[in-house]
Amino acid sequence: VPERRIAVIDLGSNSFRLVVFSASPELWHRTDELYEAVRIGEGAGEEGELRKRPMARALSTLELFAHFCRARGLGEDDVRPVATSAIRDAPNRAAFLERAEDALGMPIEVLSAEEEARYGFLAAVNSTTLTDGVVLDLGGGSLQLVAAEDREERHVGSWPLGAVRTTERFLADGEPAGKKQLKALRAHVLDALSSADWLEGSGERLVGLGGTVRNLAVAAQLEAGLPSTGVQGFALTREALDDLVARLAALPAAERADVPGIKAARGDLILAGAATIQAVLDAVGADAIEVTEAGLREGVFFEEHLAPGGTLGDVRAASVLNLFARYPVDPGHTRHVATLALQMYDDLAEARLLEPDPVERELLWAAAMLHDIGMTVDYDDHHKHSRYLILNAGLPGFSQREAAIVAQIARYHRKGRPGLGPFSALGRKGDRELVARCSAVLRLAEHLERSRDQQVRAARVELHEGDAMLRLEGGDVDLARSAAERQTDLFERAFDAPLRIEGG
Amino acid sequence: VPERRIAVIDLGSNSFRLVVFSASPELWHRTDELYEAVRIGEGAGEEGELRKRPMARALSTLELFAHFCRARGLGEDDVRPVATSAIRDAPNRAAFLERAEDALGMPIEVLSAEEEARYGFLAAVNSTTLTDGVVLDLGGGSLQLVAAEDREERHVGSWPLGAVRTTERFLADGEPAGKKQLKALRAHVLDALSSADWLEGSGERLVGLGGTVRNLAVAAQLEAGLPSTGVQGFALTREALDDLVARLAALPAAERADVPGIKAARGDLILAGAATIQAVLDAVGADAIEVTEAGLREGVFFEEHLAPGGTLGDVRAASVLNLFARYPVDPGHTRHVATLALQMYDDLAEARLLEPDPVERELLWAAAMLHDIGMTVDYDDHHKHSRYLILNAGLPGFSQREAAIVAQIARYHRKGRPGLGPFSALGRKGDRELVARCSAVLRLAEHLERSRDQQVRAARVELHEGDAMLRLEGGDVDLARSAAERQTDLFERAFDAPLRIEGG
Repeated sequence: VPERRIAVIDLGSNSFRLVVFSASPELWHRTDELYEAVRIGEGAGEEGELRKRPMARALSTLELFAHFCRARGLGEDDVRPVATSAIRDAPNRAAFLERAEDALGMPIEVLSAEEEARYGFLAAVNSTTLTDGVVLDLGGGSLQLVAAEDREERHVGSWPLGAVRTTERFLADGEPAGKKQLKALRAHVLDALSSADWLEGSGERLVGLGGTVRNLAVAAQLEAGLPSTGVQGFALTREALDDLVARLAALPAAERADVPGIKAARGDLILAGAATIQAVLDAVGADAIEVTEAGLREGVFFEEHLAPGGTLGDVRAASVLNLFARYPVDPGHTRHVATLALQMYDDLAEARLLEPDPVERELLWAAAMLHDIGMTVDYDDHHKHSRYLILNAGLPGFSQREAAIVAQIARYHRKGRPGLGPFSALGRKGDRELVARCSAVLRLAEHLERSRDQQVRAARVELHEGDAMLRLEGGDVDLARSAAERQTDLFERAFDAPLRIEGG
Repeated sequence: VPERRIAVIDLGSNSFRLVVFSASPELWHRTDELYEAVRIGEGAGEEGELRKRPMARALSTLELFAHFCRARGLGEDDVRPVATSAIRDAPNRAAFLERAEDALGMPIEVLSAEEEARYGFLAAVNSTTLTDGVVLDLGGGSLQLVAAEDREERHVGSWPLGAVRTTERFLADGEPAGKKQLKALRAHVLDALSSADWLEGSGERLVGLGGTVRNLAVAAQLEAGLPSTGVQGFALTREALDDLVARLAALPAAERADVPGIKAARGDLILAGAATIQAVLDAVGADAIEVTEAGLREGVFFEEHLAPGGTLGDVRAASVLNLFARYPVDPGHTRHVATLALQMYDDLAEARLLEPDPVERELLWAAAMLHDIGMTVDYDDHHKHSRYLILNAGLPGFSQREAAIVAQIARYHRKGRPGLGPFSALGRKGDRELVARCSAVLRLAEHLERSRDQQVRAARVELHEGDAMLRLEGGDVDLARSAAERQTDLFERAFDAPLRIEGG
């Protein structure tokens, strides 16, 4: 498959990054990243004038990036250099840009606040299931909010409420923060947002981008005892956020990074950022902020890769197929296992052995598509390796709870007694049973396809006097039947009905 | 790369297995496995006559295997069906084999005891660094020992000392075992082995194959608090084995699987097997048994794949290159990082900043070759994913301690403070410093190759008045130097010398 490489160069206020994506229609992923903590805005002060030393750091970084692009054969058509607020707002930006473009050997696009917000929006709609709601992007300088309706951008606002500014204004002393201080900060944010009357009726869903959001999510995950496999799709609830704010506020700024998960480099700004998010949750009327790891750079990439429009048709399906395409497993077998599993699921619903649920059905499909990817790591324990690969690559579009369920179903496709494992803390009522049902169906489908040759064309489930009957249709199904007959126990436990297999 | 698929069908006493290997000259791995607990020897008694019901199970299993081979396009030239002792020793084997070959649609090779031992030997020499020593293969029926000299098979012995037989003779009552009972068992084994005078002078190294050995290793790993990433290369010491025997002996047979790690299906036989291994350690004069996960099936595969002779030239290099070839990472970059790392290592030895050690040098090379394989999982945390992939695939030829060191060096190639992490229990004196040295060198090499275009042709280290000088040679090395200059701290700590970088 011929892959196109697309590099995005992000000249941000804190850091410059060069990110390389490799993309073919069915597969894309980040394949390289250069990061430099340039701090171009250092010492810029109120007027925003770029200073000599930060500019020198910026230029030598851009030389490194140029060198990298040449070495990797990335030409002007493959590279999208974009600059954001620190450069946009600098009175001496023209002089800087001339030298910067010289160092980089390519033109640099200075994004307007609206364009910047749009890329955040594209990142959010292509990595979550957001259709109606608000996208928050909180940086050091500004807070940007975009309201989406039916996956289209409807309203955009940008406020000078970044964590650097709110910290300077409300928490500058670095002491433990009192309730009054935090209340004043939130009131200030809410007051600023009051002009955006579109926030209130915007669907009560809030998706968050940016380092502050991600770092708060890591801390909340640790607090909940969850495995650290990234924060994609994690829902940071108002309750967990309030708890974090209380713990951070009780500490002086210098000690806030002692809260497990909080990065040392963010210790000084994290509290103001967290309080700002509290205020936005109030303004939107949401009870959680859904975290995505995607951001500006992914937004630019999606625009390049998914032109025109820059949005995926079905984010969840695209995520599953993207991960599936990354590993050289047997596609004929995998797709057929998914087909058989969904057939059985639909028949079980028809026979009232389960309550049909389109989300559950989609989780089953995802697990079926990904059940064997771990074979690349090692044949032994490949079900466990599949879980590892799913969790660590992440499944944008699925909540973390859903991704964990997909990973657990894949984990139990061969053996073991299904459960939520290390993800119990994410589970809702009924999730254990959901995993048990889907694992039972997937395990049967896997064993019907044990010889990997699609001999079983159809697997139909019916109910006869309280017994489930699985009827196999196809060519030579004898051996599939004998393989599946030894795997009925999970099914019988999950559906509380004896299972007989017929056909052949 | 055109891959050849080779299937080995192992008609063993306890189970039948079909294992598929995919192989090209530089890459091989197991890609599928069918397992059936046929227990062909069930009820065979003293005379070894195969009974009707086990034979029926065997035939239907062989039909499944035949079906699988047809479905997967595996013809007679690709499949090696081999039968071992239960079938070999059965008086009615001819009648069974006729029907079995009919069911499978291919001829079945009945291995002699010597041939069986030879395949175990091939598995051992191709998955460990054994040059001189003894290979033990302990099954249910027999114990087989092969003495190797300079990686050649020199002596072979087979004794009816399998765990089923020794259990029946010495531990049949299933009660907690007394010291006398175990002593008698060991004396019986030693007595039987006394005819094999070649055991004593055979190099004092013992490599073990088979389920009993692997299961004891899992229990010892758990006891030592080690991560459960397989037992390849694990050294089960005499001390740890003695401890396990004491714990197992204190329990009735029915409760021995309560010892963490001991499989339920082995609880009844594990103690006799463990005591037998104690006796073999005595006979050989070894203080540990080195565990390999390879066995008969791998031996047959190696004979097919590595003809003539069936032995790898350099097991450790082959393991590293095999794992490297499995992941689509940038080979030019990887190999050049390895070259630069070894150059610096050799110069550091020359400058007496380290004590040269060919093993340490090889571990550094292995880590350099594998440092980026985790990128396939996800770019984020790819150093941690590299560790996961190395540990879970295993590195045959390296001890588990060495494989853990390789994984830890790869883990620290980008960031973090190097250490042994979860493998401290495997570490020897000086291992922490070894990991620190190699991580420092690898991190420098990685950053000299930060633009991935091999501009730095050579990196030479010299000592000038107590300072280390790193001189870069090549084309445009300015940017490599600036990248490396920010990574000198690890080096300066590891070698206790300031580092200056020159060139360009």
